[in-house]
Amino acid sequence: MAEGKGPAARRAYARAGVDVAAGDRAVELMAAHVASTRRPEVVGGIGGFGGAVALPAGYHEPILVSSTDGVGTKTAIASGLGRYDTIGVDLVAMCADDVVCSGARPLLFLDYVAVGRLDPAIVASIVGGVAAGCRAAGCALVGGETAEHPGLIEPPAFDLAGCCVGVVERERLIDGSRAAAGDLVIGLAASGLHANGYSLVRTVLAAGGPELALDAPYRPLLVRVFGAGEPDGVDSILATDAALGISIAADATLGDVLLAPTRIYTSAIVDLLEGPAGVEPHGIAHVTGGGLPGNAPRAVRPDLGVRLDPTRWPIPSALRLVGRLAGLGDAELRATLNGGLGMLVVVGRSDVTSTISSFARSGVPAWLVGEIVNAARLGGVRYAEGTLEE
Amino acid sequence: MAEGKGPAARRAYARAGVDVAAGDRAVELMAAHVASTRRPEVVGGIGGFGGAVALPAGYHEPILVSSTDGVGTKTAIASGLGRYDTIGVDLVAMCADDVVCSGARPLLFLDYVAVGRLDPAIVASIVGGVAAGCRAAGCALVGGETAEHPGLIEPPAFDLAGCCVGVVERERLIDGSRAAAGDLVIGLAASGLHANGYSLVRTVLAAGGPELALDAPYRPLLVRVFGAGEPDGVDSILATDAALGISIAADATLGDVLLAPTRIYTSAIVDLLEGPAGVEPHGIAHVTGGGLPGNAPRAVRPDLGVRLDPTRWPIPSALRLVGRLAGLGDAELRATLNGGLGMLVVVGRSDVTSTISSFARSGVPAWLVGEIVNAARLGGVRYAEGTLEE
Repeated sequence: MAEGKGPAARRAYARAGVDVAAGDRAVELMAAHVASTRRPEVVGGIGGFGGAVALPAGYHEPILVSSTDGVGTKTAIASGLGRYDTIGVDLVAMCADDVVCSGARPLLFLDYVAVGRLDPAIVASIVGGVAAGCRAAGCALVGGETAEHPGLIEPPAFDLAGCCVGVVERERLIDGSRAAAGDLVIGLAASGLHANGYSLVRTVLAAGGPELALDAPYRPLLVRVFGAGEPDGVDSILATDAALGISIAADATLGDVLLAPTRIYTSAIVDLLEGPAGVEPHGIAHVTGGGLPGNAPRAVRPDLGVRLDPTRWPIPSALRLVGRLAGLGDAELRATLNGGLGMLVVVGRSDVTSTISSFARSGVPAWLVGEIVNAARLGGVRYAEGTLEE
Repeated sequence: MAEGKGPAARRAYARAGVDVAAGDRAVELMAAHVASTRRPEVVGGIGGFGGAVALPAGYHEPILVSSTDGVGTKTAIASGLGRYDTIGVDLVAMCADDVVCSGARPLLFLDYVAVGRLDPAIVASIVGGVAAGCRAAGCALVGGETAEHPGLIEPPAFDLAGCCVGVVERERLIDGSRAAAGDLVIGLAASGLHANGYSLVRTVLAAGGPELALDAPYRPLLVRVFGAGEPDGVDSILATDAALGISIAADATLGDVLLAPTRIYTSAIVDLLEGPAGVEPHGIAHVTGGGLPGNAPRAVRPDLGVRLDPTRWPIPSALRLVGRLAGLGDAELRATLNGGLGMLVVVGRSDVTSTISSFARSGVPAWLVGEIVNAARLGGVRYAEGTLEE
């Protein structure tokens, strides 16, 4: 964020297409959002060159776990709809839910917004979403940068990335090393497409013409696409969404559904780690780019693989719709999008029930979806699909 | 970075303009760069969802200091020249030198590269520069994301951002609170434009036609612009560069000079903080967007201001050239670009000599450039320029 430039610099930058006053105004507008994420550990206010946060007390051998990610071209849905207040939630989800995979509690967050032309209200709205995500994930928003890139990014397009840092006691670090063949895999319900697959979505939408415009009513679209082939009709599809905690208004548009923010799993995972069940997960995988085949194996050691049973969990309507429109088969859907599971948690067989109960208490539907097997049994790959025999 | 996608997903993504195989190849190519930044505190290898680093031992009340930043449109100079191996140094400079302003030692770094089309060799070259910067700043490169954004960014354009986290003992945190009127300001030599002002540079270049092409020979350009008006001629201008540690080859082009990487001050500051001189700076400011007026006051409390004496330090030729071409006066130059000083260090009057000596040992030219005054004396502003009376 350009801060504190004098009048001369403002003129020079204005000639170059950079609006310094807009940057100052954006900083003012986002101050309350930033303040809303404050944790007691935060040292000082905004304005320093770096954000300062005390390490929470009580750690003997603290390990810092960090992740950086972006929200991909989901930004194009936000700018297409002119709604900027939730894409920041997606951003925090992408980063904080990577951090919690190691058993770490997210502590701090920093955002990076790149725009072609800086509109203070839009940038503040984006950062408002980041702050909402930070509150959900329990981390303080301690820094950020808004970059105005005339010529590189064409307004109203923008890019959004961020970085999250968490902390975990060394002996509680989750790195997949405790996983073993025979462990079971709990899948956590996705809330939609999350922030993955949007370049594909945009290609599908562009090819679909007006019927796939962002303002196309969602329910009639489902009827048109699934009506004839779906035994129980669209009501059943939408009832599944409701059971997954996905709220779709009667007059929702396609854009509404595509922009729906990513579920943040951090607090549900922290509840499990610190809850009364005493469950110690053996591995956790965050399902983002690469889908289930690309991410499930990352929960465990290289000598182990994951076998999932796709009959064991339901799929949100948004994924089914995009899959159908893109001509993806079910297996392709699981490899291209998140497949309906946003997070996988590997636990010992005796912990399955208490794990699912813990997630239920945290408000996240979860199911037993698979098992850990020796990679050798999978013939050289580390991901397979098949019937789970309990 | 798209990792581990299966063949079906690769096809679907290829239709959407996203090349998954290129992402995998980029990850392979950058592995050695990443490994070169490893510190003993790093836990595990790359591949986890988060990068894990143990907090270095010996801190009683550790404060984490973090900063995120980008390199602005300097990326356009890199893509214009097709040279990608140093822009990452600029990125680390932007972030790590924010962190060290608090007295914190940079510990870890994460990068974010956004491209229109993923060329594995280019992305690996960019990350190679990030790794070189991390080695210079002493931090481990523990994570990164390469985002392919077809449609949002037009190849060969790219965007580059990052995040640095450092650590400092609470009682050694530098936040400007110890500064007082009468303290003096040491300025550290800039190595050129650093990563600030490039939207302005590009506007100037675009208006200048072939004479200001990136492949225009630099020295003849200086002669044309300064030859008649400069008493001692261009030799004197280039001798100043040499004295500033800026090496400009005889056959250097304008592009070479504009792409020259930002000096990283981290190790020089750490040398001062931990060196035999026992200097405890009262405040440190990193001079980036906003130049000297925008950043100098950030080294001290709001009731204090900074008065700099611009006769006290020389200006690199690149800044003088851009300023002249953009029609900026000297004061505007200091407000728009870095003004020739990359970092300001506020110290007590008795520490001036030992501070300058410490920077000299670290290879960074430094000068006494100003003093701290009560803001009330500056009539409501917190930055002024005038003769320094010692």
